[in-house]
Amino acid sequence: MAADCESKLQLVRRHIRDFPDFPKPGIVFRDICPILKDPAALTAVIDLFEEHVRKNHPQVELIVGLDARGFLFGPLLAQRLGVGFVMIRKKGKLPGTTASVAYDLEYGKAEAEIQEDAVAPGQKILLIDDLLATGGTLYAAGELLKKQQAEIMGCLVVIELNELNGSDKLKPLPVFSLVQY
Amino acid sequence: MAADCESKLQLVRRHIRDFPDFPKPGIVFRDICPILKDPAALTAVIDLFEEHVRKNHPQVELIVGLDARGFLFGPLLAQRLGVGFVMIRKKGKLPGTTASVAYDLEYGKAEAEIQEDAVAPGQKILLIDDLLATGGTLYAAGELLKKQQAEIMGCLVVIELNELNGSDKLKPLPVFSLVQY
Repeated sequence: MAADCESKLQLVRRHIRDFPDFPKPGIVFRDICPILKDPAALTAVIDLFEEHVRKNHPQVELIVGLDARGFLFGPLLAQRLGVGFVMIRKKGKLPGTTASVAYDLEYGKAEAEIQEDAVAPGQKILLIDDLLATGGTLYAAGELLKKQQAEIMGCLVVIELNELNGSDKLKPLPVFSLVQY
Repeated sequence: MAADCESKLQLVRRHIRDFPDFPKPGIVFRDICPILKDPAALTAVIDLFEEHVRKNHPQVELIVGLDARGFLFGPLLAQRLGVGFVMIRKKGKLPGTTASVAYDLEYGKAEAEIQEDAVAPGQKILLIDDLLATGGTLYAAGELLKKQQAEIMGCLVVIELNELNGSDKLKPLPVFSLVQY
């Protein structure tokens, strides 16, 4: 890995804070707020994503981000790449004709929704979110985009929690993460 | 107004869609999704915000954005200005010690929350969101930042719904909006 890339990754890593026992006992919450507060760290995140996409997915046509922390990084990356950004939202937030898919949460269910005209059949898409845990939400987003006949090229996340095997759940979609725990 | 500025505003206006009777009968929802999907329109939004801030609030130290659509524009503007971005979130989403303030929704109440160490006393702040309606959420965000002894310089929104008088509710804070209805 290039020295420049490694120094950017270190900058990103130094701006993630751990909060044990949040949102509940036994969970370590990885907090990205310090990244957002430091312009250089946020620039580094987008630099690293941009470099990866230009190298591996130069044909990408659209960045699709998940509600709500995917909204922090998705438009920045989309602007860098000169492509559009589309939101996948929690149910009931988007006007017009929508498509939705239900998925399981730890307790109960949730629904992810997209505007039906947001994505054209065959359009080449990258999904983005802040963090990959079990992969439930990104998996649901992928199902939703498949319904729309989009061509999903992969997922981008700042943080990946390896022990939860989210990457396995998303296979064969490739996952690119900056920091792993 | 400069011709360049007017043509950017027209580009932004053309990328707002109306959805009558959403989320309920009698309401016209102003949809910003087409702005996000068009890289030039999104660039125009950030250009116009940046120009306004450099002229009127060059001392700004931090952009604070509201959950969730403020997250779409806030980090982009913060990066342009070379300052940090901070989230105000719905209750229960932020780890660590937080400050919160309750505010009224049409039915019931909500709470806006910020990390206590997110903002330093005296720090010069601009609030950002996608849309100003009655101003309830931005007003609550202002109260929260006052508790933190921040110096709030104003509010930035893409869309302002004039008939709901949100600007009056936020006085004496100045509101800068790109498109008014």
